[in-house]
Amino acid sequence: MKTYTKKDFPVSGIRQLLEPGPVVLVSSAWKGKRNIMTMGWHTVIEFTPSLVGCIIADDNVSFAMIRKSRECVINVPTADLVDKVVGIGNCDGDMVDKFERFHLTPVTAAKVAAPLIRECFANLECRIADTRLVKTYNFFIFEVLKAHVATAPKYPQTLHYRGKGIFIKSGGVVDKRQKFTKWKNTPNF
Amino acid sequence: MKTYTKKDFPVSGIRQLLEPGPVVLVSSAWKGKRNIMTMGWHTVIEFTPSLVGCIIADDNVSFAMIRKSRECVINVPTADLVDKVVGIGNCDGDMVDKFERFHLTPVTAAKVAAPLIRECFANLECRIADTRLVKTYNFFIFEVLKAHVATAPKYPQTLHYRGKGIFIKSGGVVDKRQKFTKWKNTPNF
Repeated sequence: MKTYTKKDFPVSGIRQLLEPGPVVLVSSAWKGKRNIMTMGWHTVIEFTPSLVGCIIADDNVSFAMIRKSRECVINVPTADLVDKVVGIGNCDGDMVDKFERFHLTPVTAAKVAAPLIRECFANLECRIADTRLVKTYNFFIFEVLKAHVATAPKYPQTLHYRGKGIFIKSGGVVDKRQKFTKWKNTPNF
Repeated sequence: MKTYTKKDFPVSGIRQLLEPGPVVLVSSAWKGKRNIMTMGWHTVIEFTPSLVGCIIADDNVSFAMIRKSRECVINVPTADLVDKVVGIGNCDGDMVDKFERFHLTPVTAAKVAAPLIRECFANLECRIADTRLVKTYNFFIFEVLKAHVATAPKYPQTLHYRGKGIFIKSGGVVDKRQKFTKWKNTPNF
């Protein structure tokens, strides 16, 4: 399976990975157990601190692990992993170790106990920053503490879920940098 | 410019449009003025009621219009509108009527005062449902009251922003319906 050479990446820049809306794999750990879930309902919230909001439904094994450990890793898979993404989303972490079942490699994270997934293009180590909307909507806000991102390719082919078993792959790049003159010297451009 | 024949669309199904992560155009109106902003930080939150969370920064003219009117329309543009998407994001609604400047057609909505944008593939009429995180993060939760979606194409080519002036277009479709047997008869599949 493809792996990537990764570099440390500024956490304020992780919008480059999440803003396009890819399906992600969320890994977590608690008391010697670990799990992975497939997740598509997320948004960037802030550059600095680097904040991401996610819906993690309370019927997932991951919900309890993340609530208790207060940590997780958001891993960005590329389109070649689509069968693992689907399989992980369609089985239950109570019944199976998903790293083993799907032949994925756990890698020790730098700042959290949850494992990174080696085969993913990017790994974002996260800690819970705000739980005010967890009770009402299962909406967690995480701070990205550390980001590991593949050095190549520059524009990975990501997966974007539309429901009903249908994914869209990311396609061509449209470069409009010339039109952003007003913003190009601001830090969060 | 391309327009679309649209149909009413079940609001519980709008994840098909927003979950893949497209850049959207948010239209709003207040006291005889109207505005459009480009927005990329959003997530689906719930099927029923149909809830969407969005970051609308408080330095946008739209922020005040949406807070006061408590309404907006989330419009999904296709990739052919990229220059309008960029232009709308890079000018100030205090200085210009963006419908006029960008030759976009306002259409009267059914349930809100904000106008739909005719040239967009989909239009979601929204009302504020929760403002608890507006003060801290500029994070609004909207309920989608009514959805208008083009009857074709089935998989529109959408735009996905990665920052720094770079967009990704949506590409090929990956059909994994066969692997979702467990969910295919659930309402929110």
